[in-house]
Amino acid sequence: MAINLQIPQRSAVNAVAGIRIGTSQAGIRKGAEQDITVMLLDDGASVAGVFTQNRFRAAPVLVCESHLGPDAAIKALVINTGNANAGTGEPGLLAANNTCEALAQQLNIKPEQVLPFSTGVILQPLPVDKIINALPAAIGNARPDNWFDAAFSIMTTDTQPKIHSHQIELSGQTVNITGISKGAGMIRPNMATMLGFLATDAGLPNALLKNLCQEIANKSFNRITVDGDTSTNDSFIMIATGKSGVYIESVQDPRYAVLVQALTAAALDLAQKIIRDAEGSTKFITIQVNQANTSDEALKIAYAIAHSPLVKTAFFASDPNLGRILAAIGYAGVTDLDVNKINLWLDDVKVASNGGLDPDYREEQGQAVMNRQEITIRVDLARGNVNETVYTCDLSHEYVSINADYRT
Amino acid sequence: MAINLQIPQRSAVNAVAGIRIGTSQAGIRKGAEQDITVMLLDDGASVAGVFTQNRFRAAPVLVCESHLGPDAAIKALVINTGNANAGTGEPGLLAANNTCEALAQQLNIKPEQVLPFSTGVILQPLPVDKIINALPAAIGNARPDNWFDAAFSIMTTDTQPKIHSHQIELSGQTVNITGISKGAGMIRPNMATMLGFLATDAGLPNALLKNLCQEIANKSFNRITVDGDTSTNDSFIMIATGKSGVYIESVQDPRYAVLVQALTAAALDLAQKIIRDAEGSTKFITIQVNQANTSDEALKIAYAIAHSPLVKTAFFASDPNLGRILAAIGYAGVTDLDVNKINLWLDDVKVASNGGLDPDYREEQGQAVMNRQEITIRVDLARGNVNETVYTCDLSHEYVSINADYRT
Repeated sequence: MAINLQIPQRSAVNAVAGIRIGTSQAGIRKGAEQDITVMLLDDGASVAGVFTQNRFRAAPVLVCESHLGPDAAIKALVINTGNANAGTGEPGLLAANNTCEALAQQLNIKPEQVLPFSTGVILQPLPVDKIINALPAAIGNARPDNWFDAAFSIMTTDTQPKIHSHQIELSGQTVNITGISKGAGMIRPNMATMLGFLATDAGLPNALLKNLCQEIANKSFNRITVDGDTSTNDSFIMIATGKSGVYIESVQDPRYAVLVQALTAAALDLAQKIIRDAEGSTKFITIQVNQANTSDEALKIAYAIAHSPLVKTAFFASDPNLGRILAAIGYAGVTDLDVNKINLWLDDVKVASNGGLDPDYREEQGQAVMNRQEITIRVDLARGNVNETVYTCDLSHEYVSINADYRT
Repeated sequence: MAINLQIPQRSAVNAVAGIRIGTSQAGIRKGAEQDITVMLLDDGASVAGVFTQNRFRAAPVLVCESHLGPDAAIKALVINTGNANAGTGEPGLLAANNTCEALAQQLNIKPEQVLPFSTGVILQPLPVDKIINALPAAIGNARPDNWFDAAFSIMTTDTQPKIHSHQIELSGQTVNITGISKGAGMIRPNMATMLGFLATDAGLPNALLKNLCQEIANKSFNRITVDGDTSTNDSFIMIATGKSGVYIESVQDPRYAVLVQALTAAALDLAQKIIRDAEGSTKFITIQVNQANTSDEALKIAYAIAHSPLVKTAFFASDPNLGRILAAIGYAGVTDLDVNKINLWLDDVKVASNGGLDPDYREEQGQAVMNRQEITIRVDLARGNVNETVYTCDLSHEYVSINADYRT
């Protein structure tokens, strides 16, 4: 059950000039009509990416990083679902490179102009022949207005496609911002999420886009968690084609801040959609940790709350058993934390003051908030002026069922 | 369903000379026949304890620490279940002190000779009057052979009592080692577990027992995890009464090593019993991380595996989806880990060599191990010569049910 996850009409998903998308069926992901996606870029597009910090980095992640050097001129992306090509060693690397070569040959470009992506089960050989055989069909149906289909064709345990599309005006010209993401489990991105692709037809130099990609990942995909499991394949890619006619050379251009705000909002929406469709989730939970000394300590506390199975099951049950939140704050690893200064809110209800139950708190108030589908936990530390926000979900029977049955 | 958890016959639980135990009903833990336990110590007993490192330390933990100074002469312990007296601020501290005072008055000792313990729900006022009213009955039935009843009277979500009792011979004299523990959820002890009490009628100086208590906790209760949630009330207490006639003055005494080995085995058994009865668990999982450079990095990897909801649900399903273990190793935070050197075993089956699927591994082999109730995951890092072992369990539907319904 996805939580307030809006799927736009196909007609409301705007094309991004300079990008054509095609999908096809390789037969790798069981039961999927489409499991191969290609994105074909016109000349001149800037492309940047951030990737998982898991030490077991999947073969396609390693290939993407080597292809995204300073002189990169990326022309195509290829994505398969059903197999992550992770924990596959040298044969896995060869399979990822063979995929790039096959696509390059058919498009008459160089293999290093291709970025490969894989998502699905880990520690299984990639059926690379199936992918290569499915490429011509995907290239054949590539069209600019195919983002809607692509959102479906990159899904694994997702129940809903994740799409964001909106337009902004810059110096009187329309700029399109459209993106897709996927992921529902093994979600605690550390640089980026399982897979996220965000494109604009505004133009940006490669170097600027590279910094921006990291900056935006840190405000969106790097602030969500389902189960604390950082994937081996996390990749977040941004593409700026420049085909809208709007080209921004530097951060001094006053249009830059407007574009950054729009791209950040789009990335945050795509990241939040992953939480809204998280495996088995019934609640969308925002965790704000305020008045911290450092971002690091705020995030430690936010993630301790977000990963506590006891907090998550209490939210699943709509049970205001809120001492579990205090326990998580206490073991988060902020060793000099003065718990006697902590205040805790659930939406607009003050639960704890100065480290203990607020004298005015009534169980009915906590219960009323817990019954909601979207809930904000706010922790004020009274230590400094750094605030951080993390998004997560509850832990339900359905999560256990999905992950106990994933491969069967 | 507890996993191979042996409950000894009442007659096989040996008394420890110098300790009498009584139980009674205060009516705090719903449905419990007994929820108050007192342990009364003869003069001369050494007592040491280690306590939770959660920053939200429960009031009884704070009181225990203040009473366990270098000149402590502890004469009594009082334990209530059903309420943790945590997140309760000044009133909670007053309640813990009032409990000590009431017991001291009835025993004609000083309040600071009493150690109080509470376990149960957090962020609720302690019904101290109910405890005080139940003390006379507990004192009235105090007997040396009451460890068996005490193991029941300290339970919360435990389905089974946890008792260890055995004897050793030291210089021709019989020494008794008997202990009890409790805990099934909110278990990732950091210094000690929810509640563990281990006693011997051998004698040891207070200072020696203090060091030993920490040393043994680090090899037993500090190596188990159910859900990664470090409790606010973790306490592990060791008592050495000296009433066996065996008194060990220093670590140079050759009997010291024998006693330490016996006490460590007892503590490890009590700690493992908590995992065997962990909330909803169906599998007992031992995680060995070998060939690490440091204990810290070995434990980071062991706990990353032990806390991964994806690993835990795969074990629940008996699904050899073992890439999830590699993913957890990869995100454990050992930043210079060379994954190409990692070998992974499941019991005697080699799953991965040099960071990829072992060429001789067959799914049927992994499946055969996954079907077992007790499984060892072994990770060889090929970095150094430090080994660490952690004990955990799987994550089942029953865990979600128990923790979604805890207070109702």
